[in-house]
Amino acid sequence: MKVRDLPTPALVVEREPLAHNLDFLSRALPGSRLRPHVKAHKCTALARLQAARGHVSFTCATIREMEGMARAGLGEDLLLANEVLDARRLATLDARVTVAVDSPETVAAAARDGVREVLVDVNVGLPRCGCAPSDAGRIADLARAAGLSVRGVMGYEGQVVGLADRAARIAGVDASMELLRRAHADVGGPVVSVGGTGTWDLHRDATEIQAGSYALMDTAYEKLALPFRPALFLLATVISTSAGWAVADAGLKSLGMDHGPPSIDGARVWFCSDEHVTFAAAPGTAGPRTGDRIRLRPAHVDPTVAYHERIHLVDGEDVLETWEVDLRGW
Amino acid sequence: MKVRDLPTPALVVEREPLAHNLDFLSRALPGSRLRPHVKAHKCTALARLQAARGHVSFTCATIREMEGMARAGLGEDLLLANEVLDARRLATLDARVTVAVDSPETVAAAARDGVREVLVDVNVGLPRCGCAPSDAGRIADLARAAGLSVRGVMGYEGQVVGLADRAARIAGVDASMELLRRAHADVGGPVVSVGGTGTWDLHRDATEIQAGSYALMDTAYEKLALPFRPALFLLATVISTSAGWAVADAGLKSLGMDHGPPSIDGARVWFCSDEHVTFAAAPGTAGPRTGDRIRLRPAHVDPTVAYHERIHLVDGEDVLETWEVDLRGW
Repeated sequence: MKVRDLPTPALVVEREPLAHNLDFLSRALPGSRLRPHVKAHKCTALARLQAARGHVSFTCATIREMEGMARAGLGEDLLLANEVLDARRLATLDARVTVAVDSPETVAAAARDGVREVLVDVNVGLPRCGCAPSDAGRIADLARAAGLSVRGVMGYEGQVVGLADRAARIAGVDASMELLRRAHADVGGPVVSVGGTGTWDLHRDATEIQAGSYALMDTAYEKLALPFRPALFLLATVISTSAGWAVADAGLKSLGMDHGPPSIDGARVWFCSDEHVTFAAAPGTAGPRTGDRIRLRPAHVDPTVAYHERIHLVDGEDVLETWEVDLRGW
Repeated sequence: MKVRDLPTPALVVEREPLAHNLDFLSRALPGSRLRPHVKAHKCTALARLQAARGHVSFTCATIREMEGMARAGLGEDLLLANEVLDARRLATLDARVTVAVDSPETVAAAARDGVREVLVDVNVGLPRCGCAPSDAGRIADLARAAGLSVRGVMGYEGQVVGLADRAARIAGVDASMELLRRAHADVGGPVVSVGGTGTWDLHRDATEIQAGSYALMDTAYEKLALPFRPALFLLATVISTSAGWAVADAGLKSLGMDHGPPSIDGARVWFCSDEHVTFAAAPGTAGPRTGDRIRLRPAHVDPTVAYHERIHLVDGEDVLETWEVDLRGW
């Protein structure tokens, strides 16, 4: 199949930058040093490419992602890096399952529902999940008393990963990891699981990095001058042109919008509607014609992918494979 | 099933406000005066409730919506209120199919692919699809010359529907409809199809109103003081609490964010992450506890629903029915 034959909107991944991104981080963080986060791509087909490069421990954000990875035979070491109060669906998976806990309630749910291994999730600065660093030892004690094996700690410096200034990211990581170090001393266990695409090379003490966006990238991460290349595009068809603007058939239902609108090379995006993007060609350039295909670069990969049933792997004009986005939902 | 047994995040619709919204607009715009837009709910189960109230002509935004409605036996009069350059999937539907056209290219695609009926889509002020009003007669002539039946005109005053001030909406509708009236004089045909939830009662000359959001509503439309009640909620579980904030398990992948973050009664939303919302209880109120269920009100219904596989119809603590969101995708 050819790219021009794909119905639009269609999510496409370019083979070469994807391979570059996967290969680059595999060399920098070989084997279990990288625990790829599947939430960014939600594709077991793409996770297989990561596993083929030696990464057999994965990070998930939802129970559905855990189930899908186990079903795909990718369950050697799955971390649910998120708190849950009903873990029953996890206990029956054909996989090694580790769950994040940060409270007596999440410890009790894991123990009650048959989970065996946990990480203590420590808040290192982002106002989200994670216990206070000073409380981590107590949570670990509770977990062990409940019969759970505590593998170590997890801390996500989400307030830092997106900072465009590298020096600021370094300072932020150091501050966050100082908090995590103290918590880890109280918790014990071999694992220190941290980070993301924006901080992949800024950790000294962590045993593993939870990067996900590096594989596909988006315009928010492009601002950080990372060694990863844009690999994900949303293909759309120009369906209407007017004096001063044009409209293509990709909009709010095919793009995560929390980081802002998508980008189009050589054009300015005016706004998105449910199924439309209105844009204007750069001054002095030929305007698009009805029927033209255009490519949008999403601002945020994760919620963009979550809207789509499939991703097409392409090389130039050829569609090489079509992957089901099989880890969607909850 | 009880609401407390639903895994979260879960989209729920309350029976009573939904019935109010459907009944109210059915009385105000009976039968074919209302052409409900299915893009807002993407559920044939909900479309059936609209059909049971006498509305058997529907509006769609995508070919997939047209296919799903036809397959569900709701194809008596389906309008694709959008431009397409490949209409092959429409020609084989077991339904009466009408497609919007606004250019020689979209006319040619409809004629080539076996569509029989069209509306001329006229731009009435929103920089999106639609031909210039002065060009509408030419597009209609092209369509008739290509063997298509021209049912009339369509114009969407999208620049007006969301204005909070009613007087401003009235003035905007009047200006838009003056443009559409002139175009209709050149085009002919019995149909003048316009509008949306924000302007449902502001049209004098239209033959039908394309309202969709009125059934479920969202916080953006709530600002307009319309006679429709909030019926859609996103149910979430508090999975983590800290000094000053709490986190529930609903985020960017379960909420359309282009109109801003969701609302939580009695709390202030700080931000959303992929699978989380961080919020703080109102000062002086008891903070949420881990395990509590909360309800979020989405800011924009359409892209919220598009993330979900199902919607649960509830009445108090009872889950009455579970509907598949079966019109998703393209």
